[in-house]
Amino acid sequence: MKLTPEQIRQFEEEGYFFLPSCFSDEEVAVLRDEAEEIYKSNRPEVWREKTGAPRTAFAAHTYNEAFRLLGAHPRLVEPLQQIFGEGVYTHQFKINAKAFEGDVWQWHQDYGTWARDDGMPEPRAMNIAVFMDEVMAINGPLMLIPKSHKHGTLAAEHDVTTTSYPLWTLDKETVTRLAQEGGIVAPTGKPGSVLMFHGNLVHASPPNITPYPRKIVYLTLCAVSNHITKFTRPEWIAHRDFTPIVPVADDALLAYARAHKVAAE
Amino acid sequence: MKLTPEQIRQFEEEGYFFLPSCFSDEEVAVLRDEAEEIYKSNRPEVWREKTGAPRTAFAAHTYNEAFRLLGAHPRLVEPLQQIFGEGVYTHQFKINAKAFEGDVWQWHQDYGTWARDDGMPEPRAMNIAVFMDEVMAINGPLMLIPKSHKHGTLAAEHDVTTTSYPLWTLDKETVTRLAQEGGIVAPTGKPGSVLMFHGNLVHASPPNITPYPRKIVYLTLCAVSNHITKFTRPEWIAHRDFTPIVPVADDALLAYARAHKVAAE
Repeated sequence: MKLTPEQIRQFEEEGYFFLPSCFSDEEVAVLRDEAEEIYKSNRPEVWREKTGAPRTAFAAHTYNEAFRLLGAHPRLVEPLQQIFGEGVYTHQFKINAKAFEGDVWQWHQDYGTWARDDGMPEPRAMNIAVFMDEVMAINGPLMLIPKSHKHGTLAAEHDVTTTSYPLWTLDKETVTRLAQEGGIVAPTGKPGSVLMFHGNLVHASPPNITPYPRKIVYLTLCAVSNHITKFTRPEWIAHRDFTPIVPVADDALLAYARAHKVAAE
Repeated sequence: MKLTPEQIRQFEEEGYFFLPSCFSDEEVAVLRDEAEEIYKSNRPEVWREKTGAPRTAFAAHTYNEAFRLLGAHPRLVEPLQQIFGEGVYTHQFKINAKAFEGDVWQWHQDYGTWARDDGMPEPRAMNIAVFMDEVMAINGPLMLIPKSHKHGTLAAEHDVTTTSYPLWTLDKETVTRLAQEGGIVAPTGKPGSVLMFHGNLVHASPPNITPYPRKIVYLTLCAVSNHITKFTRPEWIAHRDFTPIVPVADDALLAYARAHKVAAE
């Protein structure tokens, strides 16, 4: 899949682009089904809220076939090869649950963490959010500050208390200043929609206080020549296999879904 | 101001109705200005977040002229006289700030508190939310479960830990069941918009993680014959003056605003 010049221009200007219904209902149904199975498992890669509810499952592409096919999907990999002009590898892969009363994620830039904790040389890595459930205004949507990626890596504090996952977070004055310039958007859409955003784009998300689930798969794909240089986190959080992803066929995930007879919802 | 038969039907069926731009920019500007002054004061009626930021100012209609005029405004009082078929008095009056990182308000019914804590005989009292700032999907809007007012007073637990104001809150199973029946709405609108909802309508609001302020004045007006019978809370939280409100002139707040030369924004 190739991005249009308009999509590339929007990404450069605004720091993100949104692809509604990038994956079909059949493709999403099998992923959602397998995500629930993974959340039930007792793996160290599955992190939980204080209540015991699943919060994040890491590295599912290394132990689950459907997520392996998603992580190598040409609709996700080819746009990044196009933007970076080289092969990409998987830096991080997680399935975030954000069920009823999931925690807040404070305002942050992901590249801040990749640089400080993982020694990633440049912000030549990108976040891809694949919606497993419908993301609505009310169920804890991701909020982005457009244009904030142009400010480089901003000063941040290591927040290990207000969220259950340690994050380098920005202070209120910085967020206020950036929002005055770029505003705040919260893209919403059907399951299967995809949001791609720059590693320096400032983002946050409120808790989900509704009964409507809001599972999102987050892939971070990094240009191969920009691989990380510090190994302070477990390898299933910050991967160390820098082999370029070879995209699977565009219908590979669909074929898997049909072979496993998961009905589309 | 009289409600239309359609508005009354919607209130009976759905448990709420929404009046966009019920107050003009000039009227709201003076209220917003005076609210900021009240938040700066050191009165016991002003409650704060753990951070010291203002959360709620109680009883401003008793010590501030602009809020006195709002609390006796015919656009708010007359619809309730019409619904209850008798005079109404002010049971509670608060200005909620919900600034950047305001706390969550868990799912609850207000009448649960009025009955249990204040001995209010029947749910013949109503909440009126007057938007001081623009309420958007992203800055912590009030969420309502339509039709939930038809279930009477639901079993609740007294939550004194997760919010900074003690509330009788509903469990997740109850909220999930009610949302399956009625859905969830989050009315948004310009400053001056008004939302009126039944004392038994289940509602909640997420924190405001944006820099956009979201001040709302909440009035609770109660039918005079239904006045409270238990006095467990300070009288500036649950008022004991049951005299029927005599509405002021429709232009009284506007005249006050013009006399005080506060420019509309």
